[in-house]
Amino acid sequence: MAAAEGLEILAIGNAIVDVVARAGEDFLAHHGMRKGTMRLIETGEAERLYAAMPPGQESSGGSAANTAAVAALAGARAGFVGKVASDQLGAVFAHDIRAAGVRFTTLPLVGGVPTARSLILVTPDGQRTMNTYLGAAVAFSEEDLDPAEIAAAGVLYLEGYLFDPPAAQQAFRRAAAIARRAGRRVALSLSDPFCVERHRPAFLELIRDGVDILFANEAEVCSLFETGHFEIAAAAARQAAPLIALTRSERGSVVLAGVESIVVPPEPTIVVDTTGAGDAYAAGFLAALAAGRGLASAGRMGSIAAAAAIAQLGARPHTDLRLRLTALEEAGG
Amino acid sequence: MAAAEGLEILAIGNAIVDVVARAGEDFLAHHGMRKGTMRLIETGEAERLYAAMPPGQESSGGSAANTAAVAALAGARAGFVGKVASDQLGAVFAHDIRAAGVRFTTLPLVGGVPTARSLILVTPDGQRTMNTYLGAAVAFSEEDLDPAEIAAAGVLYLEGYLFDPPAAQQAFRRAAAIARRAGRRVALSLSDPFCVERHRPAFLELIRDGVDILFANEAEVCSLFETGHFEIAAAAARQAAPLIALTRSERGSVVLAGVESIVVPPEPTIVVDTTGAGDAYAAGFLAALAAGRGLASAGRMGSIAAAAAIAQLGARPHTDLRLRLTALEEAGG
Repeated sequence: MAAAEGLEILAIGNAIVDVVARAGEDFLAHHGMRKGTMRLIETGEAERLYAAMPPGQESSGGSAANTAAVAALAGARAGFVGKVASDQLGAVFAHDIRAAGVRFTTLPLVGGVPTARSLILVTPDGQRTMNTYLGAAVAFSEEDLDPAEIAAAGVLYLEGYLFDPPAAQQAFRRAAAIARRAGRRVALSLSDPFCVERHRPAFLELIRDGVDILFANEAEVCSLFETGHFEIAAAAARQAAPLIALTRSERGSVVLAGVESIVVPPEPTIVVDTTGAGDAYAAGFLAALAAGRGLASAGRMGSIAAAAAIAQLGARPHTDLRLRLTALEEAGG
Repeated sequence: MAAAEGLEILAIGNAIVDVVARAGEDFLAHHGMRKGTMRLIETGEAERLYAAMPPGQESSGGSAANTAAVAALAGARAGFVGKVASDQLGAVFAHDIRAAGVRFTTLPLVGGVPTARSLILVTPDGQRTMNTYLGAAVAFSEEDLDPAEIAAAGVLYLEGYLFDPPAAQQAFRRAAAIARRAGRRVALSLSDPFCVERHRPAFLELIRDGVDILFANEAEVCSLFETGHFEIAAAAARQAAPLIALTRSERGSVVLAGVESIVVPPEPTIVVDTTGAGDAYAAGFLAALAAGRGLASAGRMGSIAAAAAIAQLGARPHTDLRLRLTALEEAGG
């Protein structure tokens, strides 16, 4: 994939290796976790928690990285920007995202902290609770951006989690400014209700400065607009950005564009592991848009990709999503 | 678990992290692999093959290590001896085996080659083809043995793969000699037909010097006695060791002891991933013996553990095997 070709989707986020283990609700309670959310942990706690965890499985993760991988699976030209360390887990991360067909050229951090990892507990109901040690991701900065790559990409996709490492916020805003100046679209995913709580003013400012596509689930959009009512939050979101996709778990999703509202049904699936559902939804949605499809098809493709992610362990499905997108097209969806 | 308590099963083998990815038969053919077998690869080939592989999942593996983990799951006091490096994958290996309830105290290699890994391709039929880079496992030597631990363990379990790293062979023989002198039983798993081919005279010598329990599948025992006929190989095995358990895939297993022959039916299961089936069989068999059960029950418990390993991705099942062993006992099996 030559840079000259121009990516359809360029995602920026924390480069993280997931360590996934099964655990009961009691394990979560004992370690003070809130089920289904992400919390940041420091080195000491990461070590204590890992020692207490059952045997795990490691795989490449990170919200925007998952989105880039699934978008590539759906046939989009996708790239990812994020910081790993020059260590074994960093090599694993780089291998996996490239093997998924995603362009990834960010230089690894040498001689600093190790690659970020998220200690993830999957409870019997399929929900994931994440404990993230940011590691090398905190070294991500403006220097890791390639302005030409950003200016050439159709959509710049930013994950909200990247607001957590301090230097990354600056890079985040700079990347958005480059994309806007080049006439490209900026997409933002809110990532997690507590992430929104940590960075609410910064999120609102970024959106006001020009976010073209906003992705959020119910808890996140409610947290952003400080309301307990989904309809109120949705109305506020409609005013804030030209295109909004709000995911609602088993109730599917709602796509809002100006005065238009499209209700998208969920794709039937069995629930094995819900993580990556939102990442995959954004991937399907953006891949469909990149393929020239309308908003209703984009929403449907989001649901299809999310269902594929939910039906298996791990955030990056194996399903041939390119085929699904083509089938959707043939059906005139 | 205090060393003074004495382990029921002490396993010695290569300490390996598995990198598992799905691939078609064409990928195997293109890279010159023989499906269902293990081959050794050097650093250069490991790098080339990894670069060509689809995205993977990492988890702790190693044949004897899997056996120790599954034996612990079935309620046995199990330990493992094997060499990792002092790196991220080594830490992952150590965490997982300890979290499985296995005693593991071997010191990691510092400043040498990295932790061993096996690049594993799972074909659509559920079979695994392994490409193992031995890494730090080649540094395993007699110095890593704790004679007191070996002398106190009920069964010393040796994996055939450990004949591949040259210094390990010496350690292998020394461990067996310590166990015999202490009046303990020595068990040997043949691991792989090509491993048997590489080390046939050494295997035969070790067995002649006193292996009490021999585990093998059809291909391995046929390779050991250089015959294409299972019945001939089984008859030769009966002469060679006091207790032999021969696994026959969907035909179950056969337990041979002196003039006695016990045919054990397979446990019905769906085939997701066959690796670890032999490791789990040995674990169930030995855990049942450690619990004071007879040979028929040991064979049944081997089948149950193997079925649990086959029904899921990964070599170490999550099923409550302790419960299964208790249930078997209540049924008078």
